[in-house]
Amino acid sequence: MSSTPAYDLLAAASLRLHHLGHLGAVAHWDQETNMPPKGNEARGAALAELAALMHRMRTEPQLSERIERAEQEPLDELQRANLREIRREWRQANALPEALVQARSLASSRCEHAWRAQRQANDWAGFVANFLDVLRFAREEAELLSQQEGVSKYEALMGRFEPGMSCGEVDRLFGDLKHWLPALVRQVRERQARETVIEPVGPFSTLRQVVLCGRATRLLGFDFEAGRLDVSTHPFSGGVPEDVRLTTRYREDDFQQSLMGTIHETGHGRYEQNRPRELLGQPVSESRSMAIHESQSLAFEMQLGRSRGFINLLAPLLAEELGPQPAFEAANLHRLFTRVTPGLIRVDADEATYPAHVILRYEIERALIEDEIEPEDIPALWDEKMLALLGLDTRGNFKDGPLQDVHWPSGMFGYFPCYTLGAMYAAQWFAAMRRAMPDLDARISRGDLAPMFDWLRDNIWLQASRWTTEELAVRASGERLNPAHFRAHLEQRYLG
Amino acid sequence: MSSTPAYDLLAAASLRLHHLGHLGAVAHWDQETNMPPKGNEARGAALAELAALMHRMRTEPQLSERIERAEQEPLDELQRANLREIRREWRQANALPEALVQARSLASSRCEHAWRAQRQANDWAGFVANFLDVLRFAREEAELLSQQEGVSKYEALMGRFEPGMSCGEVDRLFGDLKHWLPALVRQVRERQARETVIEPVGPFSTLRQVVLCGRATRLLGFDFEAGRLDVSTHPFSGGVPEDVRLTTRYREDDFQQSLMGTIHETGHGRYEQNRPRELLGQPVSESRSMAIHESQSLAFEMQLGRSRGFINLLAPLLAEELGPQPAFEAANLHRLFTRVTPGLIRVDADEATYPAHVILRYEIERALIEDEIEPEDIPALWDEKMLALLGLDTRGNFKDGPLQDVHWPSGMFGYFPCYTLGAMYAAQWFAAMRRAMPDLDARISRGDLAPMFDWLRDNIWLQASRWTTEELAVRASGERLNPAHFRAHLEQRYLG
Repeated sequence: MSSTPAYDLLAAASLRLHHLGHLGAVAHWDQETNMPPKGNEARGAALAELAALMHRMRTEPQLSERIERAEQEPLDELQRANLREIRREWRQANALPEALVQARSLASSRCEHAWRAQRQANDWAGFVANFLDVLRFAREEAELLSQQEGVSKYEALMGRFEPGMSCGEVDRLFGDLKHWLPALVRQVRERQARETVIEPVGPFSTLRQVVLCGRATRLLGFDFEAGRLDVSTHPFSGGVPEDVRLTTRYREDDFQQSLMGTIHETGHGRYEQNRPRELLGQPVSESRSMAIHESQSLAFEMQLGRSRGFINLLAPLLAEELGPQPAFEAANLHRLFTRVTPGLIRVDADEATYPAHVILRYEIERALIEDEIEPEDIPALWDEKMLALLGLDTRGNFKDGPLQDVHWPSGMFGYFPCYTLGAMYAAQWFAAMRRAMPDLDARISRGDLAPMFDWLRDNIWLQASRWTTEELAVRASGERLNPAHFRAHLEQRYLG
Repeated sequence: MSSTPAYDLLAAASLRLHHLGHLGAVAHWDQETNMPPKGNEARGAALAELAALMHRMRTEPQLSERIERAEQEPLDELQRANLREIRREWRQANALPEALVQARSLASSRCEHAWRAQRQANDWAGFVANFLDVLRFAREEAELLSQQEGVSKYEALMGRFEPGMSCGEVDRLFGDLKHWLPALVRQVRERQARETVIEPVGPFSTLRQVVLCGRATRLLGFDFEAGRLDVSTHPFSGGVPEDVRLTTRYREDDFQQSLMGTIHETGHGRYEQNRPRELLGQPVSESRSMAIHESQSLAFEMQLGRSRGFINLLAPLLAEELGPQPAFEAANLHRLFTRVTPGLIRVDADEATYPAHVILRYEIERALIEDEIEPEDIPALWDEKMLALLGLDTRGNFKDGPLQDVHWPSGMFGYFPCYTLGAMYAAQWFAAMRRAMPDLDARISRGDLAPMFDWLRDNIWLQASRWTTEELAVRASGERLNPAHFRAHLEQRYLG
């Protein structure tokens, strides 16, 4: 037995994984932004090799004994939290054989790459051919994790993104939403039908949008010395905390997509850039969960980004970069940015109809993982639920239907609920901020975003994974996740 | 003992290293092209972790026995060549302790990153502060490799890039050059002083140069489905064979630098893109040596790129992309592209003065590695040799002096000779091609570059590391490296 404390050996192993994870993050970012098509097989093989290697490191036989031993060592509170997270990650890794980890990585790399062209081509059958492998490995993983954790298969997969969240809780929260949201959407739409909104007149040159998005990102405090903003098919925030890579996409007929997408990713990016530095590379310094991550992007995009105060700051930037036009007057922009319109695309959805997109995906992917349906059943279910939830006909439109998201091609089952949980958390954070700072909105209107950033930094970003998600919420806002704040926010903004 | 043939186990290990090397190549390319400054420490740590990990894999204790066992197994000729290369790489790795490999990687990452700003700022003292560590680790490595290989320290380092090349041979080749080249340069300059050359009139927009360089790269057969062309401070060819990343740099007052740099890197890129696929990931499919690699870039840039025939093809592209002007008339372009002018910058040097830059660096870095001089001695030696070899005064100009190249900051001692050896090989290849195809130049003039590409593909690219460098040269051209072809080429082009 070594004389080095077991905790120190575990921390050194975490740091090694962090360094290798860095290379994976760069390679993945590059795959989405730069990589030419013929590079994909080799990239997939390289990432699968890394996944297998990291899995081997996470499941080294001596870790079990080391974790037991570290539990007995004198640790401070932060180290103890770190050990809790190390144990959690170790348990998750140990449930899976290396061959599955590597096969899953290869299958999703291949499926995701082909999906980019298949989506454009509306090629559902071509997609399913690759997707069957992705699903097969996800089901195997779900089965293994489920046995170990003693929860349902879908809940086991969701736990990778949202530790501590149960399907029962999601059902309760989403059931509540399904109960009141359709009526709210109806009411909002009736009211908005009487408003006059001036449509912006394009085209909007990509180059000017790039400059505009860069300015918005800077305004939101993103550090470009420690990150970049680029283009990808599916916008995401990646990279590493010291070098955060945001992406967006540009359409010359619509500046809102790139701008709001950028503001969304900037929320993710600031969380990453402001994770605590003293234990960087340790699990305790990781973001708490994906719902908490989405609560940051949605705090930026929805809570702040579509508020009157922030739109007052955006309006002159729009006029400067895209040229002045009547649509860019602040009151009109606010009407434009808060318009509620059921649409086909999740990432372009307004905050009132967004939950419907998530509920639909949650119900379908949960049934897929629980072996209740097969991929061939997806299109009919999709059509049925889009009609029921949003009143839209999606038949035959796979491109803007089940092919629109990167999550399924890349095997990220269990992620979707995090978006709506994140929207609820974001509303809860803003409610807490306004209680603590009654002049918050006035300060935002004056361009003083520091109070909001400081609150998020102190209560969320710097807390990282020090507490469980529930503890984090209670410490930040005085209560665990409470969906009433989301409802109050929508009612106040759209019906107030 | 396993029942799997030892050779198969070695090949599987090589493939794993190949996959991990892929991630290192992407991370390194990104570091040079995209990475924001605050990302450097983390990137350096990640690459050092990878270097240590790959070193551990290359020095696993069971490899020695496996290599011995594989020698006794029935192997075909290609497998036997692969085993030879596996053994060579294994010997090199085993000479070095892991701690040195990791420390060297970290030190060069840090030095190289700081050098980018220090070069701009002409900050020699700041550079030396970091460079001392790089040099210390290089000397340690040289000492260890030297003991193992029984050659001088510098030769041991050079062997990493140019296996089989001795300092005695380099001295002989460079001594010969020093004997006749200064007189040739003088003669050429006297003759060219009587020529009239029309100077191109700028500025040349970066955007148009990007398009021009892209067209030239395509004309040279580079596959953009399996590679990219981007911008970096120091142009290079990187990435992986399935996804080759070329870089260049743009100056609005000079289109030649980006264009000729791109043509140079395209030569490297085509070699990489056309390495044999059947054993990809195995050492036998790697490029033969760095002199052979440079022989490809110089075959493209110097032999082809500045030939009358190819300039006939370039002239209309220049006029189309940069706008027509008298300087772009083919005969004038040829005079422009073959002008011999001693200058400060190696990568911008013409082919007649280029060897002087290499000889100077070879003499200095060899003395550094052999402990004959220290970094503080470099500037005076640089000034003295630039004056002696090229008649130029470089005092106080570190930026365009010893700070101009990436090699020393990144610890690549022993690389420089490869450039001039490569120029000699390139001349030898073209001499062999013209013997085999007397109409080669006529065909190039007609835009038919296929014969040249086919010859290089069959004789160099697809041969990869199947033969020793000497065997490769004999098979391709009927003789080992013969510097007479380089001399004949210069005399024919510049004094013919």
